[in-house]
Amino acid sequence: MKTITLADLAAMEKLARVQFASSLPGVKPVCLVGTRDAAGRTNLAPFSSVVHLGSKPALLGMITRPDTVERHTLSNIIETGVYTLNHLHRGILEAAHQCAARYPREQSEFDATGLTAHEEDSFVFVAESRLRMGMKLVDILPIEANNTRLIIGAVQCVQVPAASVSEDGSIDLPGLGIIASTALDTYFEAVEVARLPYAKA
Amino acid sequence: MKTITLADLAAMEKLARVQFASSLPGVKPVCLVGTRDAAGRTNLAPFSSVVHLGSKPALLGMITRPDTVERHTLSNIIETGVYTLNHLHRGILEAAHQCAARYPREQSEFDATGLTAHEEDSFVFVAESRLRMGMKLVDILPIEANNTRLIIGAVQCVQVPAASVSEDGSIDLPGLGIIASTALDTYFEAVEVARLPYAKA
Repeated sequence: MKTITLADLAAMEKLARVQFASSLPGVKPVCLVGTRDAAGRTNLAPFSSVVHLGSKPALLGMITRPDTVERHTLSNIIETGVYTLNHLHRGILEAAHQCAARYPREQSEFDATGLTAHEEDSFVFVAESRLRMGMKLVDILPIEANNTRLIIGAVQCVQVPAASVSEDGSIDLPGLGIIASTALDTYFEAVEVARLPYAKA
Repeated sequence: MKTITLADLAAMEKLARVQFASSLPGVKPVCLVGTRDAAGRTNLAPFSSVVHLGSKPALLGMITRPDTVERHTLSNIIETGVYTLNHLHRGILEAAHQCAARYPREQSEFDATGLTAHEEDSFVFVAESRLRMGMKLVDILPIEANNTRLIIGAVQCVQVPAASVSEDGSIDLPGLGIIASTALDTYFEAVEVARLPYAKA
């Protein structure tokens, strides 16, 4: 085993450090976040920092970077109080990745990438997604350590093929082809290797 | 697509709701968190809520549940200010899962499961892990929405086989056999399906 120290990290070229540091969590979720601004213009952006906060109520968090540049997703969520989380599969992976590009606010990522908007209630989902959640903003916590923020949302609805949810509440992620990620550029499919019983001492 | 509403979620049996809600983020990281208490007694606990917060400095977050029951990991981190994150592979998966059981503070999960402690500086790593980080506590943010907390740590060192890190900073997670998870019981290996270039508008 090689030890990479704080000094080694500091000496890394910037892009290599970002690639390395954003690989450290390992295999991460990735979702397209769907929003609208107050004028109704839609936006899609990939987030790989979605995290489960609790089950009753069902709460999910995600991290947003400092808003030193225009952050359409964050400002749209603040403006409307709602957003969607749309999981990826291989058929929409390239289009989803392309949503990370910096389009002007006037240009919707739906138009730019060919993904289809599915509008329902106040939500704008990705029609092609096989697992998607309508979310209501609960709170935005400032993370002073590096000027990021934790966006906290409550799950309002989940849309998924009925056959992919078991009686026990499990969702068949490999069957749906749900994509995971690491760093900013690498995508995975998941192969189940074990399902283990509740651990007792 | 079936829509599961807030009313459907509320009507779910408790275990099914937990299983369902904790599957919604999709394919998640999972790490063993290694700590010591002030008396030097070691502890290991699996966390599936590790999230990348930033790269300069390299910061990682993780969520801990309300401390209505004894939370050894949280109290140990507060006592000592340090912890380790140890990624899993198939060879240590069952032992790592078993660390979720509620052992008394006197019994180390290392002894209970046969995992090997690797002690270095103030850190207690899992010797069998192929990707592990020494962490320094930076902050603990209360999440009022459900009384959980975000533990924020700064990466102090990373231990990984030298051959698994590329010049560009990428870590070969599939080559290391890094395990991902969903819900509380399901584990995956990752198969790379794409590495995509930086997206431009």
